[in-house]
Amino acid sequence: MLYLVRMTVSPPYGMPPEEFERLKNQEKEVGIRLQREGVWKHLWRVAGAYANVSIFEVDSPEQLHAAIGSLPFFPFLSVEATPLVAHPSSINPADNPALKEEMA
Amino acid sequence: MLYLVRMTVSPPYGMPPEEFERLKNQEKEVGIRLQREGVWKHLWRVAGAYANVSIFEVDSPEQLHAAIGSLPFFPFLSVEATPLVAHPSSINPADNPALKEEMA
Amino acid sequence: MLYLVRMTVSPPYGMPPEEFERLKNQEKEVGIRLQREGVWKHLWRVAGAYANVSIFEVDSPEQLHAAIGSLPFFPFLSVEATPLVAHPSSINPADNPALKEEMA
Amino acid sequence: MLYLVRMTVSPPYGMPPEEFERLKNQEKEVGIRLQREGVWKHLWRVAGAYANVSIFEVDSPEQLHAAIGSLPFFPFLSVEATPLVAHPSSINPADNPALKEEMA
Amino acid sequence: MLYLVRMTVSPPYGMPPEEFERLKNQEKEVGIRLQREGVWKHLWRVAGAYANVSIFEVDSPEQLHAAIGSLPFFPFLSVEATPLVAHPSSINPADNPALKEEMA
Amino acid sequence: MLYLVRMTVSPPYGMPPEEFERLKNQEKEVGIRLQREGVWKHLWRVAGAYANVSIFEVDSPEQLHAAIGSLPFFPFLSVEATPLVAHPSSINPADNPALKEEMA
Amino acid sequence: MLYLVRMTVSPPYGMPPEEFERLKNQEKEVGIRLQREGVWKHLWRVAGAYANVSIFEVDSPEQLHAAIGSLPFFPFLSVEATPLVAHPSSINPADNPALKEEMA
Amino acid sequence: MLYLVRMTVSPPYGMPPEEFERLKNQEKEVGIRLQREGVWKHLWRVAGAYANVSIFEVDSPEQLHAAIGSLPFFPFLSVEATPLVAHPSSINPADNPALKEEMA
Amino acid sequence: MLYLVRMTVSPPYGMPPEEFERLKNQEKEVGIRLQREGVWKHLWRVAGAYANVSIFEVDSPEQLHAAIGSLPFFPFLSVEATPLVAHPSSINPADNPALKEEMA
Amino acid sequence: MLYLVRMTVSPPYGMPPEEFERLKNQEKEVGIRLQREGVWKHLWRVAGAYANVSIFEVDSPEQLHAAIGSLPFFPFLSVEATPLVAHPSSINPADNPALKEEMA
Repeated sequence: MLYLVRMTVSPPYGMPPEEFERLKNQEKEVGIRLQREGVWKHLWRVAGAYANVSIFEVDSPEQLHAAIGSLPFFPFLSVEATPLVAHPSSINPADNPALKEEMA
Repeated sequence: MLYLVRMTVSPPYGMPPEEFERLKNQEKEVGIRLQREGVWKHLWRVAGAYANVSIFEVDSPEQLHAAIGSLPFFPFLSVEATPLVAHPSSINPADNPALKEEMA
Repeated sequence: MLYLVRMTVSPPYGMPPEEFERLKNQEKEVGIRLQREGVWKHLWRVAGAYANVSIFEVDSPEQLHAAIGSLPFFPFLSVEATPLVAHPSSINPADNPALKEEMA
Repeated sequence: MLYLVRMTVSPPYGMPPEEFERLKNQEKEVGIRLQREGVWKHLWRVAGAYANVSIFEVDSPEQLHAAIGSLPFFPFLSVEATPLVAHPSSINPADNPALKEEMA
Repeated sequence: MLYLVRMTVSPPYGMPPEEFERLKNQEKEVGIRLQREGVWKHLWRVAGAYANVSIFEVDSPEQLHAAIGSLPFFPFLSVEATPLVAHPSSINPADNPALKEEMA
Repeated sequence: MLYLVRMTVSPPYGMPPEEFERLKNQEKEVGIRLQREGVWKHLWRVAGAYANVSIFEVDSPEQLHAAIGSLPFFPFLSVEATPLVAHPSSINPADNPALKEEMA
Repeated sequence: MLYLVRMTVSPPYGMPPEEFERLKNQEKEVGIRLQREGVWKHLWRVAGAYANVSIFEVDSPEQLHAAIGSLPFFPFLSVEATPLVAHPSSINPADNPALKEEMA
Repeated sequence: MLYLVRMTVSPPYGMPPEEFERLKNQEKEVGIRLQREGVWKHLWRVAGAYANVSIFEVDSPEQLHAAIGSLPFFPFLSVEATPLVAHPSSINPADNPALKEEMA
Repeated sequence: MLYLVRMTVSPPYGMPPEEFERLKNQEKEVGIRLQREGVWKHLWRVAGAYANVSIFEVDSPEQLHAAIGSLPFFPFLSVEATPLVAHPSSINPADNPALKEEMA
Repeated sequence: MLYLVRMTVSPPYGMPPEEFERLKNQEKEVGIRLQREGVWKHLWRVAGAYANVSIFEVDSPEQLHAAIGSLPFFPFLSVEATPLVAHPSSINPADNPALKEEMA
């Protein structure tokens, strides 16, 4: 199942730069791992903002929460997850599995 | 370039059902054409709501506006288009073209 | 999987009362069916408002959307679906399946 | 009587990790006690967010306030409590006591 | 138990004046009855707005909902009910029953 | 004249606990004094939140501001004051002075 | 006492133009009367919007409500009244009566 | 002086198409006239929305209001005008007149 | 030209009291100077809140910005400036210069 | 392509003044460079607020993000970028390239 996830980062003022840098690298590592696992399907930046828009593909909301909760930046994120479903007008089999059945 | 587009439909009360049905079919036809053209890259429904979340891939914001403006439902839509850019932590070449260059 | 769903009803002014009454009865029938199917797990009214708060238990967001989309009132509803996951501090096996495993 | 309660946590930056950990454990203990007492009836996490959605069953709003106010995280929570009432279309006796009387 | 209730009226354009007048009188009658029953404890107008702020005293949220739902204006109201509890710093026995016990 | 006043408290993180406790006690003292003076007519807590809902009865908005401004917590409060007027449908002489004149 | 009052007009679509014109003229007459009475002290338009910002000087919130409630446009207005008090840094005797006493 | 003006169009449902078309043409004529007069300096569409973002250059807010108020679509517009001033970091003489003086 | 300006103060926690006091006095001095210059025409407090509502009369938005930007509290203020224009229904020559011309 | 970009600055309390001054100068340098490069096409201040409204002209949203992300103030900015397109009613060839073609 898919989720549209919007994460806005509020970097806390006062954190030593090197610590923030360390967290940022960890954040990147975790993000890459989740993408490799196919959980974090799309990751884009919102142009101009310290925020990202992502599509998560997971088997359950638990998996979604575990993924996002594992992010080192989690305490500085405000996150909104919107559950998505296939749209009957979508002709993209990847987004509209029903089409695959029709084509099968 | 990519846009996250959220469209919320407010069906006007009082429109004769057959007219609304006609518009809905036209809306579907236009949507399918735009998808075939590769403009409307992803189309999902927001689970439970009369709204969709889409990813548009266009060459210019003009193309984005022309596509959305051509929708028969346009006068009943409230639309928000968020410009997206590649995220350096994205490992998906489709979303992070820089990777293609690195791999080239 | 569970969703918190909040539905606010905006009854359209101008609809003939008998038609509204008819729709209301249909709404009730569909609601009862969904509850019998175990999809609409909890249904409460927001005290004082023309709105309800519900917990839906479904196998997929598709099932959630199909259920809500089938409501005759759907065009007059504004709906927000929030995906829920088990909380590790929950001691209620019905809400925190992990406990069942621990007890098994 | 039932309340839908949404709690969003804003962990204060600068709190020593061990102190936060201590508070978190206390928070869990208080939460478990309230669940055992039947006050905190359902506790779920909002998937992806540092927030929970709960159903409290109490005899009075005073009991609700005492329960939430006793949480060690209270100063870092923004809380919204929505009073719920039975919905006449609910077929769940646990949520719609009137049914029990009908069945009695 | 007490609720702060804010009701904002959106008079529907197009309703024949005499019908609106009729509803308004019915609204007043129902309001007076609820006040006589002690349910509608305080009723004030928001200065300058087509809205009221009220304090309802009821035995249960069900009673609150029944009272507000019985208002002829209900379909044109947007209502927000906030549950209130006694404040330990209140010295008004009517609002802080604990004081009565102390004085008893 | 009456005001509905809603105060939300944002306790500043980092204030030494004993100082916060001291301020809290002062806050209580000032609150009690204002109630004795009849200015702070009703004081309730919003169930579940670090906020209160109050009814102030003052001779002038200046008196309202002086009262609220004198609260030690003032710098940590976000305050909204809504001016109230008697509602013609109110049958409570305390809230609808016009009734007293009718009964006189 | 003074109020900042912001009125936003939502002209209802479908009202016959001549009726709207008639209401507009009545609105102007009532507005002029209230200004002559010194109640409507300042009336400005928000540049570019169908809204006005006004300062009302009244003896009581009741007088404020009576004035605004008497406007023919009242059912199409959304109104927000903010109570104002003299600012100790104001050197304008008209706005800061305390100065007059000092000068007396 | 410059204003950022954002206009969102809410086409009223039920207006005969030919009337709407007529208004649209008038709207375009008035818009072109205002641009020729140099009042409407920039006019862009918000990509994907029935809204525009404009820069108005006028001698006074009165001129701004007269221009916007003269638009046939005015009753269906929600308009927000934000006053702009030169930014000291701007190196564009057209936007930062002070530079012209420096260069003079 | 006139602006409605609303300033909300968020006193930063942690500033040494004497420094805050010093800034406050400077704020008052600057405010008085601006009033003497006729720029800060009206200054009122929002009853109950740490905020003010003001009317600025300036020759240009630049003058408005210079005035507000010069306030020592500027970094702790959130400011909204709304441009005002004369309302044709205003009978106050000070607010509706056109009247002066008519009377001339 | 053009973007309307609104940046609101929240200067972090506690940063040593000299460090803030240093950042401010760097911010100005980066801003001037981007303007010289033609990326930052217009830069205005919102009158009265610690915010700017800008028009960016870039070849891609990536270029927009790189420009804004390079600002030293980026961590203290909240940024909203709105994609703009030519408006068919615009007679300004700079804003409505289609006109140039017509005139060619």
